[in-house]
Amino acid sequence: MQLESALYMIPVPISDGKLSDFLPSGNSEIISGIRHFIVENVRTARRFLKKMDPSTDISQLTFYELNGHTPEDDISGYLTPLREGNPMGVMSEAGCPGVADPGAKVVLAAQNEGLRIIPLVGPSSILLSLMASGLNGQKFAFQGYLPVDTKERDKTIRDLESQSRRLDMTQIFIETPYRNEKMLDSLLKNLGGETLLCVASDVTNPQEKIITKPVKRWKEDRLKIEKVPTIFLFYCRDGKK
Amino acid sequence: MQLESALYMIPVPISDGKLSDFLPSGNSEIISGIRHFIVENVRTARRFLKKMDPSTDISQLTFYELNGHTPEDDISGYLTPLREGNPMGVMSEAGCPGVADPGAKVVLAAQNEGLRIIPLVGPSSILLSLMASGLNGQKFAFQGYLPVDTKERDKTIRDLESQSRRLDMTQIFIETPYRNEKMLDSLLKNLGGETLLCVASDVTNPQEKIITKPVKRWKEDRLKIEKVPTIFLFYCRDGKK
Repeated sequence: MQLESALYMIPVPISDGKLSDFLPSGNSEIISGIRHFIVENVRTARRFLKKMDPSTDISQLTFYELNGHTPEDDISGYLTPLREGNPMGVMSEAGCPGVADPGAKVVLAAQNEGLRIIPLVGPSSILLSLMASGLNGQKFAFQGYLPVDTKERDKTIRDLESQSRRLDMTQIFIETPYRNEKMLDSLLKNLGGETLLCVASDVTNPQEKIITKPVKRWKEDRLKIEKVPTIFLFYCRDGKK
Repeated sequence: MQLESALYMIPVPISDGKLSDFLPSGNSEIISGIRHFIVENVRTARRFLKKMDPSTDISQLTFYELNGHTPEDDISGYLTPLREGNPMGVMSEAGCPGVADPGAKVVLAAQNEGLRIIPLVGPSSILLSLMASGLNGQKFAFQGYLPVDTKERDKTIRDLESQSRRLDMTQIFIETPYRNEKMLDSLLKNLGGETLLCVASDVTNPQEKIITKPVKRWKEDRLKIEKVPTIFLFYCRDGKK
């Protein structure tokens, strides 16, 4: 069966382990019909495709690299095979492309030309953390990275907390793994004792830890966060409600 | 193999079609080890379990209903089987439990007691829409439902637009299907011409439509939105950046 010409947004795993634990089998049928891939990192993309189907002849595939270093002017050119009627895939280094990565740029270029984009199901550490956090999933914001400078970061955390209270909204953000402990320091220093803080580490790994407790209980029983991919979430409910 | 005792967050499909297109096969292995389910709607939960495995004996399963009508005091009691060492599942009516549904309440009760929660991968119309929208996926907010009252809604849309510009953030929200056309009216009336608006209808269905264009182009070529589940997203980039 000929695969429909579209830009397929292809999630990849966020941990090791069996692909069938994290990806619908329907995805691999689609991927096997694609020969042109726009990827954040060519090496991890090749490794994923080989793992999914060891019989894949990687030399028959074309990869276009899209990351923070890609010149804006190159991006639209990547879509030439799609314009000519070939299906194309977009892959991030980990998780869902177009979320917390530079993938959205090429999607917007495709949207501008009225090309069809089809998102596939797969793991997102942001969404999985939120599901398991117990925090408000009816209103939430993903803030990306917070400022690195201590003073600016302190202020941002306090601003996000008051916003959380005012808007009844869960705040979600990420940090580079080697700064996880410093981030926890800043959170415990700046957040109120009743604010619920969730630390979600190594999501989808066997050693996954997703723990929510009030800040005052984090202070009493502080767990060490390893230098592993971690999502931070907090939620401050307005006492008046 | 005995399934680990934990609260499993179990996504269900958001459209008809083969389950293997939307859910990892690993999920069904886990689900077959669970006999106690906390669900938003018992009827849809049964139907999903039967579709996944027609040999399931539904009469052997226990369902606890958790929706907007469930008294707060009942929720913690639902976790008794988990406290006794049995795995339990949480299922929403559609998509990922704990996101845009009342599921988070029981998760928080489990977090309070230090019980383990394990989220499984599955379809989220919010995340899939964002992936395919081309809008900023590095900062975004899910706002739930906007006010129904026209004046309040108009103001909210304008506020969210100025917040989007100021914070460089994609705004995401939902509407009940029969009000989709009215929502599009309000958006075209209140948003600036350059603001990018994405309408994502019937996500994961064969007739899925995820279309992003500037508001001024929506006005020139307005597409009818059917009375189907729809996610609305917009993003206003600050011209000064």
